[in-house]
Amino acid sequence: MKKHNFNAGPSILPREVIEKTAQAILDFNGSGLSLMEISHRAKDFQPVVDEAVALFKELLDIPDGYSVLFLGGGASLEFCMVPYNFLEKKAAYLNTGAWAKKAMKEAKAFGETVEVASSEKDTYTYIPKGFEANVPADADYFHITTNNTIYGTELHADPTVPVPMVADMSSDIFSRPVDVSKYICIYGGAQKNLAPAGVTFVIVKNDALGKVSRHIPTMLNYQTHVDKGSMFNTPPVVPIYAALQTLRWLKAQGGVEEMQRRAKMRSDMLYGEIDRNRLFRGTVTDPEDRSYMNICFVMADEYKELEADFLKFATDRGMVGVKGHRSVGGFRASCYNALPAESVQALIDCMKEFEKAH
Amino acid sequence: MKKHNFNAGPSILPREVIEKTAQAILDFNGSGLSLMEISHRAKDFQPVVDEAVALFKELLDIPDGYSVLFLGGGASLEFCMVPYNFLEKKAAYLNTGAWAKKAMKEAKAFGETVEVASSEKDTYTYIPKGFEANVPADADYFHITTNNTIYGTELHADPTVPVPMVADMSSDIFSRPVDVSKYICIYGGAQKNLAPAGVTFVIVKNDALGKVSRHIPTMLNYQTHVDKGSMFNTPPVVPIYAALQTLRWLKAQGGVEEMQRRAKMRSDMLYGEIDRNRLFRGTVTDPEDRSYMNICFVMADEYKELEADFLKFATDRGMVGVKGHRSVGGFRASCYNALPAESVQALIDCMKEFEKAH
Repeated sequence: MKKHNFNAGPSILPREVIEKTAQAILDFNGSGLSLMEISHRAKDFQPVVDEAVALFKELLDIPDGYSVLFLGGGASLEFCMVPYNFLEKKAAYLNTGAWAKKAMKEAKAFGETVEVASSEKDTYTYIPKGFEANVPADADYFHITTNNTIYGTELHADPTVPVPMVADMSSDIFSRPVDVSKYICIYGGAQKNLAPAGVTFVIVKNDALGKVSRHIPTMLNYQTHVDKGSMFNTPPVVPIYAALQTLRWLKAQGGVEEMQRRAKMRSDMLYGEIDRNRLFRGTVTDPEDRSYMNICFVMADEYKELEADFLKFATDRGMVGVKGHRSVGGFRASCYNALPAESVQALIDCMKEFEKAH
Repeated sequence: MKKHNFNAGPSILPREVIEKTAQAILDFNGSGLSLMEISHRAKDFQPVVDEAVALFKELLDIPDGYSVLFLGGGASLEFCMVPYNFLEKKAAYLNTGAWAKKAMKEAKAFGETVEVASSEKDTYTYIPKGFEANVPADADYFHITTNNTIYGTELHADPTVPVPMVADMSSDIFSRPVDVSKYICIYGGAQKNLAPAGVTFVIVKNDALGKVSRHIPTMLNYQTHVDKGSMFNTPPVVPIYAALQTLRWLKAQGGVEEMQRRAKMRSDMLYGEIDRNRLFRGTVTDPEDRSYMNICFVMADEYKELEADFLKFATDRGMVGVKGHRSVGGFRASCYNALPAESVQALIDCMKEFEKAH
């Protein structure tokens, strides 16, 4: 049976990325060696990193003066690296979900941390409005989580605030154009739109570094990795190789504008069905905040007892990963770049069929 | 032409590990999904982590009261995590190479750091003798690097000192039995004897945690990862899967005693030829310190001008990665667990043939 991969992350990647990575694991570039057993300092591997960096810059139209890094440790490690590197006196955070809150929590150990706005009391079912006006003009940075995977909300454009921004874009990188010049740092785990788990991307503005007075452990200092082109220590070779294959695919498909068009089309299809189908309702209260990446919905109040039934019904028809995050329940269909519209249609067909049966 | 992989890391892995990982990337457990696109919280993946932890404990005979973690970031990140978690007042370090020194450097920011002994002035060509007597009895821990990849020296047994030890075993883990009870923490990058780059193993004694008074950022606190079984954030799924395949292979081959027997056999063969062949000489001054894992040698003084010639000669015959580390030059044949004796013989044949020609 054909599987439709709605996993929230690690998640669907283009089939050609998967096949090329499997092939390189058997034989890298015809070298007679596996991608898993070549040196990261081999002549053949440096071009992989170089091309991945160049495509990152090209696809996101990153201005001069920024570095692109591929690190280990995950976005959660960035939660402390950001204040380590940028928080001298005061940082501002937008609390739009569990990950945003975790990022804010780490900052508190490093200096004054201002929660600019929060939708926590309403289970993060919307993005707080008008937060831009509350960002302190003397903050070292303003941190946002552009897409909230668990709750299905998303900032669809880059805010305008009086201080430089830092963003966790783990789950929506490469799904829309970004005005990188508004940020001093954009980071994310790669395991949604880019690569298998195990590599973290960081876009950092070079001249924003070196401004804090504290000692920074070597590996937590972005300057270490900027100076060594992500090769201070052994980088995660296989995930970086897979990321390069995805970046090539992204470019060939038409880049971030095309990804945005497809994301909007997929989410219009699915939100349309959620709104139409009497059995279901969306969980995000403000339609403009609805994520294109993670589409969250629950059974309508009068059909609540059907939740487990629908999960089984959809799973039996090849839907994978449509169960909502354990902290909120319901359903979540993650629709990352590599998800074909055909998969969204298959889920919609399930919903229609289930509606007919009830 | 058959390649003989002497890479220092990332390095040779058993062919069946490579093939099984490639297969799982195409289709994980017959699920119709790639290992690169399954959730780390999928029912099928938890058993991978559980079995890897269980085999770690079995193969190294780890006593009760220890946890095994699979993290990101590399051993270099552990250099600061160790003092963050264990250094309250004083730490002791043995300086046996560039990596040992880097580990010691990170500790200095956290408390008094004592260099117990060093062979730095002699380019780390031996392990300092009698260091055990110099370890301060009031140190929180004594840190060692059991194998020094760049210089080809190795501690072949676990020292006995009056304080608990911490060890970087990146390049010799699973090559000999270890008395884990002497350590509160053993860590390493997996990219030598275990897995592709991208996962760090940590063996930590549970009751050694929670004893420092400082705040520890969440991701740098071993307790975070102990509490969540390495699933606090998304772990590096593909490298962990490959590590499991290697652990199964290790067990099937006879475990660490058999790996030690093979390592000794391989290194006896190669050191024997280095000592016999008039063109070459070993760089480690004390034979008991010679590493079984990384066998370093140079041209004998009167043949120095042949260095580039021999490198080409060996490379032309399929030897990969035999160039010495850029900081010391000469040659380095890394002979990790998966390297067949046949590859060592092929290198010896090269050395003999080259000798005849000169």
